[in-house]
Amino acid sequence: MKRKENNSGSGLKIIPLGGLEQIGMNITAFEYEDSIVVVDCGLSFPADDMLGIDLVIPDVTYLKDNIDKVKGFVITHGHEDHIGALPYVLRDINVPIYATRLTMGIIENKLKEHSLLKTKRKVVKFGQSINMGQFRVEFIKTNHSIVDAAALAIYSPAGTVVHTGDFKVDYTPVFGDAIDLQRFAELGKKGVLALMCDSTNAERPGFTPSERTVGTTFDGLFEEHKNTRIFVATFASNVDRVQQIINTAYKFGRKVCVDGRSMVSIIDTARNLGCINIPDNTLIEVEQLKNYPDEKQVIITTGSQGESMAALSRMASGMHRKISIGPRDTVIFSSNPIPGNEKSVTKVINELIRKGADVIFQDAHVSGHACQEEIKLIYSLIRPRYAVPVHGEIKHLKAQAKVAQSLGIDKDNIFILSSGDVLELSDSGAKVTGRVPVGAILVDGLGVGDVGNVVLRDRQHLAEDGIMIVVMSLDRASGQMVAGPDIVSRGFVYVKESDELIEGARQTVEDALQRCLDKGITDWGKLKNTTKDILGDYVWKKTKRRPMILPIIMEV
Amino acid sequence: MKRKENNSGSGLKIIPLGGLEQIGMNITAFEYEDSIVVVDCGLSFPADDMLGIDLVIPDVTYLKDNIDKVKGFVITHGHEDHIGALPYVLRDINVPIYATRLTMGIIENKLKEHSLLKTKRKVVKFGQSINMGQFRVEFIKTNHSIVDAAALAIYSPAGTVVHTGDFKVDYTPVFGDAIDLQRFAELGKKGVLALMCDSTNAERPGFTPSERTVGTTFDGLFEEHKNTRIFVATFASNVDRVQQIINTAYKFGRKVCVDGRSMVSIIDTARNLGCINIPDNTLIEVEQLKNYPDEKQVIITTGSQGESMAALSRMASGMHRKISIGPRDTVIFSSNPIPGNEKSVTKVINELIRKGADVIFQDAHVSGHACQEEIKLIYSLIRPRYAVPVHGEIKHLKAQAKVAQSLGIDKDNIFILSSGDVLELSDSGAKVTGRVPVGAILVDGLGVGDVGNVVLRDRQHLAEDGIMIVVMSLDRASGQMVAGPDIVSRGFVYVKESDELIEGARQTVEDALQRCLDKGITDWGKLKNTTKDILGDYVWKKTKRRPMILPIIMEV
Repeated sequence: MKRKENNSGSGLKIIPLGGLEQIGMNITAFEYEDSIVVVDCGLSFPADDMLGIDLVIPDVTYLKDNIDKVKGFVITHGHEDHIGALPYVLRDINVPIYATRLTMGIIENKLKEHSLLKTKRKVVKFGQSINMGQFRVEFIKTNHSIVDAAALAIYSPAGTVVHTGDFKVDYTPVFGDAIDLQRFAELGKKGVLALMCDSTNAERPGFTPSERTVGTTFDGLFEEHKNTRIFVATFASNVDRVQQIINTAYKFGRKVCVDGRSMVSIIDTARNLGCINIPDNTLIEVEQLKNYPDEKQVIITTGSQGESMAALSRMASGMHRKISIGPRDTVIFSSNPIPGNEKSVTKVINELIRKGADVIFQDAHVSGHACQEEIKLIYSLIRPRYAVPVHGEIKHLKAQAKVAQSLGIDKDNIFILSSGDVLELSDSGAKVTGRVPVGAILVDGLGVGDVGNVVLRDRQHLAEDGIMIVVMSLDRASGQMVAGPDIVSRGFVYVKESDELIEGARQTVEDALQRCLDKGITDWGKLKNTTKDILGDYVWKKTKRRPMILPIIMEV
Repeated sequence: MKRKENNSGSGLKIIPLGGLEQIGMNITAFEYEDSIVVVDCGLSFPADDMLGIDLVIPDVTYLKDNIDKVKGFVITHGHEDHIGALPYVLRDINVPIYATRLTMGIIENKLKEHSLLKTKRKVVKFGQSINMGQFRVEFIKTNHSIVDAAALAIYSPAGTVVHTGDFKVDYTPVFGDAIDLQRFAELGKKGVLALMCDSTNAERPGFTPSERTVGTTFDGLFEEHKNTRIFVATFASNVDRVQQIINTAYKFGRKVCVDGRSMVSIIDTARNLGCINIPDNTLIEVEQLKNYPDEKQVIITTGSQGESMAALSRMASGMHRKISIGPRDTVIFSSNPIPGNEKSVTKVINELIRKGADVIFQDAHVSGHACQEEIKLIYSLIRPRYAVPVHGEIKHLKAQAKVAQSLGIDKDNIFILSSGDVLELSDSGAKVTGRVPVGAILVDGLGVGDVGNVVLRDRQHLAEDGIMIVVMSLDRASGQMVAGPDIVSRGFVYVKESDELIEGARQTVEDALQRCLDKGITDWGKLKNTTKDILGDYVWKKTKRRPMILPIIMEV
């Protein structure tokens, strides 16, 4: 793509610090002269090769280096990929947070856990604007799979950028108002410099159905399974979905029990803030289930992605302390597997079927993201000069670029950015003018960033073939071996079946080391390398495996 | 399910030794008095938690214990999940192999690699029967995603069992004849005791489309991308698919290059046996590609599942020695991701898009397995007394059971077996009468079965949190510590950032050990346990991680 020269004075810089190579870790800095506004601060879940890692957060070195400019975080909605890194990033970048009601409620739960409640924060209403240095940011109502999702109009002296956040167009939402299409149109009329639009479903033609259609599906399924207990598994954060399950349960005279720590927390928060309508005497505790017959119960649970520690998996495998599943149960999966989770979801389904449950895993879900026709609608209302597709892998971004082109936007005005690119925009043009440092910081337990590539490579090596440790003691004075070499292995081969192998290996190493020592070689580095080479060859020949070999020398 | 009593004399035993908890590792023993016939001998690929494992083969203890009865292996078709364990199992169970032409060709390649060509084997034609002790086995033509797939009619004194193998109903196959439905009908007329039918697609309504429809798709795609080089990625073993790509390439005047070791081998075998039609001067070697313009080339490649070492992944990541992919290329995925491979397939797609290629990953594939309407057709022709769904996870088997019930087969006559169940059938009834030992034997490099649960658990532990090794030397005479404790870690934490942590840990362990030694405790077991407890607590408090802790004591 050709980038035009920017000949004007000050430009607006858009700097994605994450979120453009994946679905997750969304964070974007908007910079104009002495002001920076940060939109979202999400985490991502570890890739398959990030062994032992709990979660991944963005590298915010650029914000640290420009801390004086940073006016605050503006958050679009309360999902982990948009808020999850806040408790970590706030340690260095302690600036105010702006968000809508439920979004802030969920953020506050996190801040409480991390003792960060001193952070300044302000709940913003839809239509309201916040002044942040050279910027003004307006929150605009959208629809998504969680209540209170917002798009942002970011006003700067260089022009207006509209960021959709995660959205869909739902004319008949389950709770609250439909997306504020009129405001999008109004902004478009006034002139929008750039549109940053959700790409998640940009490969899919058509419209995403209204969340309400799932309610109709629930009604049908509850009618069909009148005589069994019903479980519904969905995402903990899908407040609208829970609303609909409760609606249908109430209609059929069933009591509802919510199980799974994360879901209980979010539903509590939503209820306290008036973001979910629960009729009196509908919710019951898990301990009360025994007071009602099966056909008067609905259990809403986490674990729809097959997460092994979530409530549903524990029920399926008989590890749940209070609920077990059997032949008189119907389990509805109100979710689609996120790519990568297919196998674990199937595992849970098979366990449920083995227990005799009737499992329904189709048609009880709709997406929370816009498909192609909705993306076209937003583009047609906004009519931006530049298009910057966000929220997706490159295949999603490219798919949105194709949609934008089909609407007549010039190829040169569409920017497929990478995280770290600095896109500079002004009245006279747009181009990528530089790069800032970005990256993924790994969180493992309490450690933030202390597991890097070396440690990960070691974990992969250990996982693949295990480790052989060779210990020996050398006499300080003579340099001669006074104990060992002994070999201890873990994760390599079942030792009882390999006595001969290990003894052969030990003998081979001992001979090689003795030859070194006899030649007067006492340099520890050389002795260790000899051990690694000799033992590595021996083991490869015998087993075609390459365990990690770790020589340890002690001096006595 | 109620099982009827069997009061007759000798029964026919059906003993699945694998294949019923998964798609993979298919092997079933049929036993009547002094005769055992084994159908298929497949491998499976390791589950996600089988770290470092290359492949998985069935435990055939039952066959070893009854080796005198075993008359031979009868193989339905040449896919790994039906033949892949042969080279391992033949080491103990060296009996003749019976298979059709291409199936045997592929098996012979394997036997060659494992120096097992002395194994007796016989190529069988469709319609032909083999006498095997008390059994007679007839091979019946079916369709699947590989040429020469067979169903089996297994005749025993207790009655006839029909085993479909993997199949679909393709009235217009790409190569050779359609499935021999007349023979199925004839067998049904004469009376069939039990039907063992492929369950892979039993959850899907309707018919699987003919393989030929993919040819039409290729014609359209080649027409649409006349000016680019075309890559098509598919399964190495899908000979019919390769046939169609070649047909379309020939039609459009393009040369075809096959890349990927496994695919080259299978296509060679198929060609030598006359199981694929390749016009003269169509195939070229990879070295010849440079002699032709892009728009005259088609490259058929492995790696459609995103396998990191396959040809397509190496091309996408720029690691292929001879072919690189760029903006003038079109890449067609002629396959669907197998559950569990979605993420790696997406990774390759994103890399290809980043290189500028046009990637087509929809509509250029059909399944090789029967959907519900085809399953109904086979049941209606065979009209078995008993139904034993095979080839699938429990959700697939249950789905077929539902289909069978919908056709009027009594619930009590449908058997959802587990691997190891002994199903005994005779004229007077059928029931599960016992269990035989079964299991998964892990192959890692040259090791068969030497990696068991303990080693796998260690690998998982190492992968998750790494290892801390604590070495110390004790004086043989005094029992006092003369060197150490030293701590070495791998896969735990980046050491430079953790000097303080490790030194603190070392000091804590040293103090604890010294207290033990001062108290006269010199028992190595106790010293090791103290080390594990003290260090484990210390590390958990500081990091919330639980690395494996391995104390090693040397005596000098």
